[in-house]
Amino acid sequence: MFISAIPLDLAESPSGGAKIRSMAAPTDAELLQLAEQVGACLRAVGLSVVTVESCTGGWIAKALTDVAGSSNWFETGVVTYANATKQQLVGVSEHTLEEHGAVSAATVEAMACGALKLWPRATLAVAVSGVAGPDGGTEDKPVGMVWFGFADARRGATGHVDTELQQFHGDRRAVRASAVAYALHGLQARI
Amino acid sequence: MFISAIPLDLAESPSGGAKIRSMAAPTDAELLQLAEQVGACLRAVGLSVVTVESCTGGWIAKALTDVAGSSNWFETGVVTYANATKQQLVGVSEHTLEEHGAVSAATVEAMACGALKLWPRATLAVAVSGVAGPDGGTEDKPVGMVWFGFADARRGATGHVDTELQQFHGDRRAVRASAVAYALHGLQARI
Repeated sequence: MFISAIPLDLAESPSGGAKIRSMAAPTDAELLQLAEQVGACLRAVGLSVVTVESCTGGWIAKALTDVAGSSNWFETGVVTYANATKQQLVGVSEHTLEEHGAVSAATVEAMACGALKLWPRATLAVAVSGVAGPDGGTEDKPVGMVWFGFADARRGATGHVDTELQQFHGDRRAVRASAVAYALHGLQARI
Repeated sequence: MFISAIPLDLAESPSGGAKIRSMAAPTDAELLQLAEQVGACLRAVGLSVVTVESCTGGWIAKALTDVAGSSNWFETGVVTYANATKQQLVGVSEHTLEEHGAVSAATVEAMACGALKLWPRATLAVAVSGVAGPDGGTEDKPVGMVWFGFADARRGATGHVDTELQQFHGDRRAVRASAVAYALHGLQARI
């Protein structure tokens, strides 16, 4: 499990391309462009992806399926908003949720890993859990804190998962949009 | 099973409020306003909702979770983009998919009904399956044709489902955004 905590505005794009230039939340047009890039890469190599979303609430799936022809490389998506759904749909254990909380490396690791087990046709899974705000923040887990899990079936049957932590800024829309962009960048880097 | 096929631009809002005034696809701001209204109504009566999306690809869930505090009334969402996922996640039968196709009253009925069985904490389920385009349209099922299923657990244990058919116009974004708006209106009417 690899953990990084690089602020988005300072991070190199995971694809090794241009830096993410500003702290401004991405626009819908920018998210579409990113999703189109992810789709083009997935299509080129014949892989498909599944999404498991908590704080982004379906936005990553929405962004990916904005792209025409996405049924070729988008397998399925689940919005595990309630903790019970995290357990029921992708098999996050009660112990993990109690011990580490929903917003944790352990939880997104279990979410991403569980998704690949459920949908073995997919090669990549991205899981997201964070505090979108405006409520729900604590000292330990402030608004804007988002954990990402990227699982890759090619790296082992049990699903090798990279977990990454980001602290985003701005209002609920900004935090969520930034998280969607980060997830899409992370997927692209792993194709 | 109630089937209606009223063009969106001519339809009374299901809530009995203002007419949906134009055929123009709703903006993101309009969808947020609609989602906020749905959320306020759900919160007021203490009900929660689940979403099962095919052509809208997570956008209904995204719109609902744009609303702060949506964890109080948004239970979970699934994006059953692939037919296999429609079977696996919400129990649509192979027979239904083969006999009627993914874009059909029978399929959205099974999707909505299956969702309420899976998530008995939820009272309402909305299921959507249609042809977002630009490809995939046929003479029988043209681009823009979208089926909706609205299930209400209060109307029977097996899940009473209203199915409704709409023909939307415009590009992929317009069809999807119109479908999201229609689903949100339909939910609000049933709270």
